Amino acid sequence: MGDPLATSQIVHEKLTKVKALSVFSSDALSSVAYATEEILFVLIAAGSAALNLSIPIALAIATLLIIVGFSYFQTIHAYPKGGGAYIVASDNLGTVFALIAGAALLFSYILTVSVSISAGIAAITSWLPSLFPYRALLAVVGVAIVTVINQRGTSESASIFSVPTYIFILGILSLIFYGLIRWLFMGGLPTVEINEPMHTNVALQGVTLFLVLRAFSAGCTALTGIEAISDGVPAFRPPEAKNAGKTLLTMIAILIIMFLGITFLASQVGAVPNHAETVLSQIGRSLFGYGPLYVVVQIATALILILAANTAFADFPRLSYFMSRDGFLPRQMGNLGDRLVYSNGITLLGIAASILILFFKGDTHSLLPMYAVGVFISFTLSQMGMVRRWLRLRSGGWLRNAVINSIGSISTFAVFMVILITRFTQGAWIVVLLIPAIVLVLLRINRHYQQVAAQLSLERYGAPHRMRNPQVIMPISGVHRGVLKALEFARSLSPDVTAVYVETSATEGEEVRRKWSQWGDGVRLVCLPSPYRSILSPIIDYLQQLEAERQPDDIITVVLPQFVPSRWWGNLLHNQSAWMIRLALLFRRGYIVIDVPYHLTDSPNEETT
Amino acid sequence: MGDPLATSQIVHEKLTKVKALSVFSSDALSSVAYATEEILFVLIAAGSAALNLSIPIALAIATLLIIVGFSYFQTIHAYPKGGGAYIVASDNLGTVFALIAGAALLFSYILTVSVSISAGIAAITSWLPSLFPYRALLAVVGVAIVTVINQRGTSESASIFSVPTYIFILGILSLIFYGLIRWLFMGGLPTVEINEPMHTNVALQGVTLFLVLRAFSAGCTALTGIEAISDGVPAFRPPEAKNAGKTLLTMIAILIIMFLGITFLASQVGAVPNHAETVLSQIGRSLFGYGPLYVVVQIATALILILAANTAFADFPRLSYFMSRDGFLPRQMGNLGDRLVYSNGITLLGIAASILILFFKGDTHSLLPMYAVGVFISFTLSQMGMVRRWLRLRSGGWLRNAVINSIGSISTFAVFMVILITRFTQGAWIVVLLIPAIVLVLLRINRHYQQVAAQLSLERYGAPHRMRNPQVIMPISGVHRGVLKALEFARSLSPDVTAVYVETSATEGEEVRRKWSQWGDGVRLVCLPSPYRSILSPIIDYLQQLEAERQPDDIITVVLPQFVPSRWWGNLLHNQSAWMIRLALLFRRGYIVIDVPYHLTDSPNEETT
Repeated sequence: MGDPLATSQIVHEKLTKVKALSVFSSDALSSVAYATEEILFVLIAAGSAALNLSIPIALAIATLLIIVGFSYFQTIHAYPKGGGAYIVASDNLGTVFALIAGAALLFSYILTVSVSISAGIAAITSWLPSLFPYRALLAVVGVAIVTVINQRGTSESASIFSVPTYIFILGILSLIFYGLIRWLFMGGLPTVEINEPMHTNVALQGVTLFLVLRAFSAGCTALTGIEAISDGVPAFRPPEAKNAGKTLLTMIAILIIMFLGITFLASQVGAVPNHAETVLSQIGRSLFGYGPLYVVVQIATALILILAANTAFADFPRLSYFMSRDGFLPRQMGNLGDRLVYSNGITLLGIAASILILFFKGDTHSLLPMYAVGVFISFTLSQMGMVRRWLRLRSGGWLRNAVINSIGSISTFAVFMVILITRFTQGAWIVVLLIPAIVLVLLRINRHYQQVAAQLSLERYGAPHRMRNPQVIMPISGVHRGVLKALEFARSLSPDVTAVYVETSATEGEEVRRKWSQWGDGVRLVCLPSPYRSILSPIIDYLQQLEAERQPDDIITVVLPQFVPSRWWGNLLHNQSAWMIRLALLFRRGYIVIDVPYHLTDSPNEETT
Repeated sequence: MGDPLATSQIVHEKLTKVKALSVFSSDALSSVAYATEEILFVLIAAGSAALNLSIPIALAIATLLIIVGFSYFQTIHAYPKGGGAYIVASDNLGTVFALIAGAALLFSYILTVSVSISAGIAAITSWLPSLFPYRALLAVVGVAIVTVINQRGTSESASIFSVPTYIFILGILSLIFYGLIRWLFMGGLPTVEINEPMHTNVALQGVTLFLVLRAFSAGCTALTGIEAISDGVPAFRPPEAKNAGKTLLTMIAILIIMFLGITFLASQVGAVPNHAETVLSQIGRSLFGYGPLYVVVQIATALILILAANTAFADFPRLSYFMSRDGFLPRQMGNLGDRLVYSNGITLLGIAASILILFFKGDTHSLLPMYAVGVFISFTLSQMGMVRRWLRLRSGGWLRNAVINSIGSISTFAVFMVILITRFTQGAWIVVLLIPAIVLVLLRINRHYQQVAAQLSLERYGAPHRMRNPQVIMPISGVHRGVLKALEFARSLSPDVTAVYVETSATEGEEVRRKWSQWGDGVRLVCLPSPYRSILSPIIDYLQQLEAERQPDDIITVVLPQFVPSRWWGNLLHNQSAWMIRLALLFRRGYIVIDVPYHLTDSPNEETT
């Protein structure tokens, strides 16, 4: 993964607005690659005529984008050090809501990766249909590549982001502009020929309110990722909050233009959603043909989607770090790896996203309902937190601010409920079960850390006391060099050493006693009879007897002579009694178990230590 | 698996000839359930007319049976304490041949189980064809049941064996007798109607010498198991050898009558081999119809085949015990379990046989070529060993005896070569690769044990020396109760204690130094800087420095404070540095690593030890 980096090499690159837009907007902007298509996928159930409903639905979503955009504009100014939903909620709404927001965010980041990579692969397979059967495999390979790149660290790469993002923006805007010109001045657009008509297995149904709301829910995936800038305010050049706010509004404007433009063009070229070719590809193809402009748009789409996945590889480990610092996730999530990245978080994200992709066979369409639910939970909690904050602080303009965020939180909550109900059977139910489960696990982890801290605390800890010489018990399986080395060590620990031998056969027992009297250096030998040939239970019984006799604070030290074969498989050739004794004592209090290794060599005559 | 049994409960039941025949002959006699069918399976490739060649082939095999029978008769008298191929070969031919014989025998015992159980299930599915699709599953369940029964121990069951064995003998002899009577006096036998004609995908070929030899090889599976009595001589009532010899000859006679009788009947009723119904079932059905007599024969066949498998569960663990006693197999194969059986051998046999069954989908026909090769290797080596023995001892009648065993060894070797060549592509090649591989592993195991013994030997071991107080190094991750308990213990071991702290952040380092000066009880603290945030490598580097300074025989004792969470998953929530240090030192010489556990409880306030 490259040479290790020293802690002192952490640097914070400060971004211009132009660079920052490309770094933080890929997640939001890339969602236009699938949002329109999702609307059409729902409407097609009511026949091709219903597809025209996409225009008013897109306008409603654009309104929602403006509302949520202004809400986050507030957040940026209130939290110039970065105000993700977890931080805002934990600041204003208390632990449980913070954890719900945190769980929803972690889950959304995983889905950002699965969805973006799957959609990126779909852009490629729309262009090169022969790759379609391998889409899940290609997506997993994509996730693996992004994971490895992130393990190396991406701090140097801010400017690399700009190129594909701006090519994408430029490409889509050209497409829209060119389409509009043709529509206005050249008498309409050509109708696209669908290579593979959709094999819909739902019966045609009428246009119901439920269907329209479901289509609206599906289109709300256009909002995913717009919170990214509010997380990353400190990365902007000063004045950070002001620059970030302007960038947010610019991004929202571009997003709305692209989303409405694509939706309009889709309805004009008569795009029909299907699993084999994306709607965006159908539009590009009907306007540009299969020429180089089409290919550029497809590749730029794939690239920005991969960048969108890449942002989750920064967000997920950072949030995990915050949550582990607060004691809700395992400490290991906070370990900075050799390359100054939170390696465990990156790995975990890559694995989780790959599992989702494989489970849903790389189909963006199946993943999006879950994604939307997760995202709107965090939107709602973040806005609720902001409302609570204004009411609490009552700083200048608090009433106006509170109203803006109230509108934001009420709309996002309403949309959350609509998504939940209309897409419940399409995956939303999974989120409803999963988020509370994750929250319970987070709380349990936190309780564990609190208990550990309380028990390790040095408060009211008395003066250091001195321990007496420990009582040493040394089980032996015979008398040989390994045992005698262990005996030497045991005697160096304490004068109170007892060797214990389990006697499964009288003749062997006699032999051991004879040898011990010669080599045992005067140490006491206890022979335990074992009529049932068990080695372990007589030793445990004997130790329990000692336990009964000892003082409450006394520790029994068990010294286990153990030879270490020179090859790993050598262990398979010996009875693992020492290991079994260690295991049996693992959860018993008041024992310290010491293996004394005797290293064997490959050559039969060499002396060993 | 039942109550444990004490070592003193080992008893040796002495068997009458009638009982002994049933105990030792099930393996040999049960092979008539498939031997004829195997011959027909080869001949059918040359068309139905070629099936009549089975009669002369069976006569040739009967001759071979007599030759091998007399050879083993000799072995019984020469080895009244039991003379399996491994013992005879190691006595007379040296280690390598003994190991080849041992490997071949172990392999044959595994195949005895797979083949016998599969054939037993085939007897049942011939009667109840609806079970046919589940034959592999049923066979594995059968192996599991026999394995469990053997883990309980079967010493009490000798007389239980008699009933199915004698029912089988009686059933087959009645079938033959009834068939002969009808053939002689009632104008021939009815032709059987085949339910499911064989779907042979080999083109019809002519009758070639190769085909005849291959059919002969296939029929030689009738010889499997005839060595069993020579293994078990001590179980007979005195005079053991004489009684065992008589029993062997009786068994050979019964075997020849049954094998020839079945082959004759098969040709008369026009049995056609196929995968769905055994030839024996076809004969029984054509003579008895689907009546109770037919069912009795099928069930008795299944039972004697299960008994045959059962004998391997005595033979395999016993041979493993011999070979582990001689240092060629892991010691664990020689452990007498709670129930006075060699549990590990039994389990291993059950697992290996199940794997073979699943791999070959419970098809007896695919397993038999391997089985025959393995068996004839052990026959050949056993007879060669006997020849060598007569030439060496030159006791009374040595020349006659040597001639008999020479004929035995030459014929079995010739048959081995014929089987190997004619069935090479049908599985025999597997054995040719496997046996040498097993022998190499056995030799490697032996070398390991010899090296260990040499290195542990007390010969030329000087007087016990006393060790100085050990040098104790205690890596710490902070200062808390768990660390202070470990410090107490470390100080009880030695006055020479050094605490080591890896400093990844300056502020935390300052905090640790401050706390240590208060709680460290005057013990030296070494702080190791770690710019790359690695915990492990600075500690290992530090220890290597100490290594360089120490005396050759000195031991560095590393004390690792470690808290033990009350729940297993608690371990996942902590950095596993202690465990990593232990792992890193595992194969380094001159270290003793001591975990000092600090047990945590579930309640946050309880004091712990």
